[in-house]
Amino acid sequence: MAIRRKKVSVIGGGFTGATTALMLAQKELGDVVLVDIPQMEDPTKGKALDMEEAGPVQGFDAKITGTSNYEDTKDSDIIVITAGIARKPGMSRDDLVQTNQKIMKSVTQEIVKYSPESIIIVLTNPVDAMTYTVFKESGFPKNRVIGQSGVLDTARFRTFVAQELNLSVKDITGFVLGGHGDDMVPLVRYSYAGGIPLEKLISKDRLDAIVERTRKGGGEIVGLLGNGSAYYAPAASLVQMVEAILKDQRRVIPAIAYLEGEYGFEGIYLGVPTILGGNGLEQIIELELEEEEKAALSKSADSVKNVMDVLK
Amino acid sequence: MAIRRKKVSVIGGGFTGATTALMLAQKELGDVVLVDIPQMEDPTKGKALDMEEAGPVQGFDAKITGTSNYEDTKDSDIIVITAGIARKPGMSRDDLVQTNQKIMKSVTQEIVKYSPESIIIVLTNPVDAMTYTVFKESGFPKNRVIGQSGVLDTARFRTFVAQELNLSVKDITGFVLGGHGDDMVPLVRYSYAGGIPLEKLISKDRLDAIVERTRKGGGEIVGLLGNGSAYYAPAASLVQMVEAILKDQRRVIPAIAYLEGEYGFEGIYLGVPTILGGNGLEQIIELELEEEEKAALSKSADSVKNVMDVLK
Amino acid sequence: MAIRRKKVSVIGGGFTGATTALMLAQKELGDVVLVDIPQMEDPTKGKALDMEEAGPVQGFDAKITGTSNYEDTKDSDIIVITAGIARKPGMSRDDLVQTNQKIMKSVTQEIVKYSPESIIIVLTNPVDAMTYTVFKESGFPKNRVIGQSGVLDTARFRTFVAQELNLSVKDITGFVLGGHGDDMVPLVRYSYAGGIPLEKLISKDRLDAIVERTRKGGGEIVGLLGNGSAYYAPAASLVQMVEAILKDQRRVIPAIAYLEGEYGFEGIYLGVPTILGGNGLEQIIELELEEEEKAALSKSADSVKNVMDVLK
Amino acid sequence: MAIRRKKVSVIGGGFTGATTALMLAQKELGDVVLVDIPQMEDPTKGKALDMEEAGPVQGFDAKITGTSNYEDTKDSDIIVITAGIARKPGMSRDDLVQTNQKIMKSVTQEIVKYSPESIIIVLTNPVDAMTYTVFKESGFPKNRVIGQSGVLDTARFRTFVAQELNLSVKDITGFVLGGHGDDMVPLVRYSYAGGIPLEKLISKDRLDAIVERTRKGGGEIVGLLGNGSAYYAPAASLVQMVEAILKDQRRVIPAIAYLEGEYGFEGIYLGVPTILGGNGLEQIIELELEEEEKAALSKSADSVKNVMDVLK
Repeated sequence: MAIRRKKVSVIGGGFTGATTALMLAQKELGDVVLVDIPQMEDPTKGKALDMEEAGPVQGFDAKITGTSNYEDTKDSDIIVITAGIARKPGMSRDDLVQTNQKIMKSVTQEIVKYSPESIIIVLTNPVDAMTYTVFKESGFPKNRVIGQSGVLDTARFRTFVAQELNLSVKDITGFVLGGHGDDMVPLVRYSYAGGIPLEKLISKDRLDAIVERTRKGGGEIVGLLGNGSAYYAPAASLVQMVEAILKDQRRVIPAIAYLEGEYGFEGIYLGVPTILGGNGLEQIIELELEEEEKAALSKSADSVKNVMDVLK
Repeated sequence: MAIRRKKVSVIGGGFTGATTALMLAQKELGDVVLVDIPQMEDPTKGKALDMEEAGPVQGFDAKITGTSNYEDTKDSDIIVITAGIARKPGMSRDDLVQTNQKIMKSVTQEIVKYSPESIIIVLTNPVDAMTYTVFKESGFPKNRVIGQSGVLDTARFRTFVAQELNLSVKDITGFVLGGHGDDMVPLVRYSYAGGIPLEKLISKDRLDAIVERTRKGGGEIVGLLGNGSAYYAPAASLVQMVEAILKDQRRVIPAIAYLEGEYGFEGIYLGVPTILGGNGLEQIIELELEEEEKAALSKSADSVKNVMDVLK
Repeated sequence: MAIRRKKVSVIGGGFTGATTALMLAQKELGDVVLVDIPQMEDPTKGKALDMEEAGPVQGFDAKITGTSNYEDTKDSDIIVITAGIARKPGMSRDDLVQTNQKIMKSVTQEIVKYSPESIIIVLTNPVDAMTYTVFKESGFPKNRVIGQSGVLDTARFRTFVAQELNLSVKDITGFVLGGHGDDMVPLVRYSYAGGIPLEKLISKDRLDAIVERTRKGGGEIVGLLGNGSAYYAPAASLVQMVEAILKDQRRVIPAIAYLEGEYGFEGIYLGVPTILGGNGLEQIIELELEEEEKAALSKSADSVKNVMDVLK
Repeated sequence: MAIRRKKVSVIGGGFTGATTALMLAQKELGDVVLVDIPQMEDPTKGKALDMEEAGPVQGFDAKITGTSNYEDTKDSDIIVITAGIARKPGMSRDDLVQTNQKIMKSVTQEIVKYSPESIIIVLTNPVDAMTYTVFKESGFPKNRVIGQSGVLDTARFRTFVAQELNLSVKDITGFVLGGHGDDMVPLVRYSYAGGIPLEKLISKDRLDAIVERTRKGGGEIVGLLGNGSAYYAPAASLVQMVEAILKDQRRVIPAIAYLEGEYGFEGIYLGVPTILGGNGLEQIIELELEEEEKAALSKSADSVKNVMDVLK
């Protein structure tokens, strides 16, 4: 009964997947398997090896495997899905949804086959619908299939607030509900600097501008990069969720969770405050919302349902 | 007389430069400025912003600036140069040297202008000649201009040995002299697993194979990636050198240093064991070499001189 | 112009001082000097050496000096004062104040002599009056003399809340004003779990009990230990303040600060939310208080003034 | 099948035990139970609570329990034994051995009862004989009962070498065999600074002095403290062993291991180079020794056997 190192597999070896793998290894959360399609096997192996070679210098011990063979993911404790295509110019939203849905289904079959006890965290967009797809395809209970969006959204919000106030990001907190990006429902009244409500420190105009910038946060990076999208902060967000689960921390983290009546929704995945721990999603925290917030959340849910209608 | 945060500028916003910036920020070694050419200003800003947005999640406080304006590097404590082109198919070695020499000169003029008291660490290849170019152009004393190669070479060696013995990389050490890559002079007799000379643990054949794989370590990654070269381990190596200096650690680190008689060489930059601390290069450690090692080091030095002949 | 390692001196080599030294070294914030009276020089040297011997294993580089000679503190960036006696059975409060006042004066003279540019953080009780004594004796500007109490009080509060809710302490925040211990003015409405106001998660009765336990938090440990008082959490609190200053983090931290009109008080040291950075106390944050809070803060200030009357 | 946090119990709530608990929590290696005798239950609870209250500030999540009830240690992954008395003036060595033997037996019975699958690490002196006692009493296989001595001895050696050469301790390694303290067999030829054999950097006289100081390293601290013995470096050493096992690192670590023929010894516990990983003691590394080293090791083994003769 030897003590076994934890194992995390990251599906999708692009920038986000690779950066996730690096950050997992840096924290010595376990061994890491980075998976991509057969045509990308060599580059994925190259990234994995390069990362592993950073280990002696950074002082981390982790076996990092690049592969296109799902057998290498066998018995993973956690699977992170970053695979999928990004929307390209001229592509309809429905095409995007259906293509990524196909990818999710195929990836999920492999996960179920090799790691039937794993917990799955989905990043692929549109994340609410893709998490739902994985949930349905896997047959896993809802505590073992969750999506990422709120950690990233609040990270951006916190960064902008810290810049505005010239304060440490360590002391800024943020709070969002609903979908990712434009559908995000920020609860500014639950956001603070050193515990002080932001509304007391920042004018309404500036706060509105910060919220708007947060909503468009992904687009801002896409616009600047010119080619591709953000990966550092998304990877960090995924790693925080993985860590909360692997260390059974019971952290309060906004996540895309399957709702069965909470907040008045049934059978959809939506961003809500949750507790993440050794069981994956341990609990959904329900908050009383103000009318305006309720309306925004409904709108966000409608938007999720519209995407779900595209799923076959 | 407020306490000022340290400042590190990284010239070159490609994968290596960006990963270096990330790892510097993760360690909270100071504020980071990532510099690229004007045409790349937006992508560089995008990477910097994405990284900064990882801060709230990873728990680091660092201002990360993407820019093409050297004024933003003003009063840096350390400058890391990763800028330069990689050798492309059909390009002669001399063309590579001359192109990167021009880049080094132009970068150095900006460094001298804005951070005349800084310490410079060069990664650009061919690193021995490029460090020499920066040294000459800057007029800085030799303790403030050093090149990276040995940390990376030994990191690869240590990784391969750890894999061979199935042991933690934390307990494997390696030792190299001379140039980077093919010109590397590994001192296997000074390399250990938990203090035990590797020669007692690994057969000569396997050790030779590991040394050979280390020599070709950069090429192995290039071959796998298909497009581009290693950046995780190179970035980690640069960061270790920066940390040793900023924290005045007086670490024993192999570095490309300017020789004035040491090891029998005069007026060239070559990889030797050094002590890095608050003065930058604090000392070169001279070792007695065996005849075979002396010969290999001479050959490595010849190779450096050949490249230097190309410098105008 | 070499880069110099930062230097922190800790006055008082008892459990709190020693633990502070250890935690400073673990974070590689700089070299550490632990100072005690001549009769305790040898034990202080013993603790310092034992700690330094933990460095190779824990992976930290720090020179730790145990001494009774203030010359060893020369040019410290920060001085932490933990020296002083604890109240013993039968000792009047006035005796305690006067004895510790004498110690503060003598320590401060040495600080002024050897580190005239340093920033001083005081832990010694009664901390408001002792910080005032050091302020007056040193002649330092108010940004360079601050006291610790709120970090520790909120740490205790956060611990109790995390236990109550079975959640990670990482996601619990707390907020206090006023003096230490019984005079603490907790602002529960500014205290959260994952951004959610505690009042929504914990019943009023339980919250009141937690606040009361926090007030008596120091006494609870004293009662359990039987002999001596808390030192782990106090040391951690001091180290957080030192880190905020040495890394110029501009963190929002409750601290004992000199008030000149803020919150309606003049010429006394009292616990308020502050911004700590490279200048020491960068700013006092003023909040609108509710009537009940104002009254509690006034009571706390009266209590501080009573102690100050004892100072000669 | 939720992911369960690891659990480490530390038997003996004195300074070493408590510091071990703190360092385990700081590294978030798992939940920690600190156990002492019923008369010390309150102080042990006090220390545990004080430590836990440091968590919010230091950023670690760990439940730390102080107790005298072994039921609280149930299902520990690792047990660290620091309990036992120190030799007092006038006490014969045999009295010490027999008293601590009794303590080991009683502690071991509780361990076997509540954590039959655990791995045990013993610190109590005389450590070779006490580890043997625990081994026999527990009936555990030899891979699950090991003793600490070499990590601490080499830590002291490395500290003294780093001071001598004014270099970072990170780059100094040391190597010992045999018993703890006076019976230590240092292998200076396997000890390096940055990979360079110390014999090339330090004169024989100075090296001899450093070895001698290392042998007496425990006594040096005892002498300075005046009352009690070292605990920071011993705790750090224990934590390194725990970490190697819990993270299945397969580190090369000197440990007190049960010999069955290795190095020519049978049926005794002695300090040898080992590999520590998920199975506890994964392997003993056998080295060819020089005649002088063999003689010293034999002498060390004789000394262990003499102590073992005292065990009833």
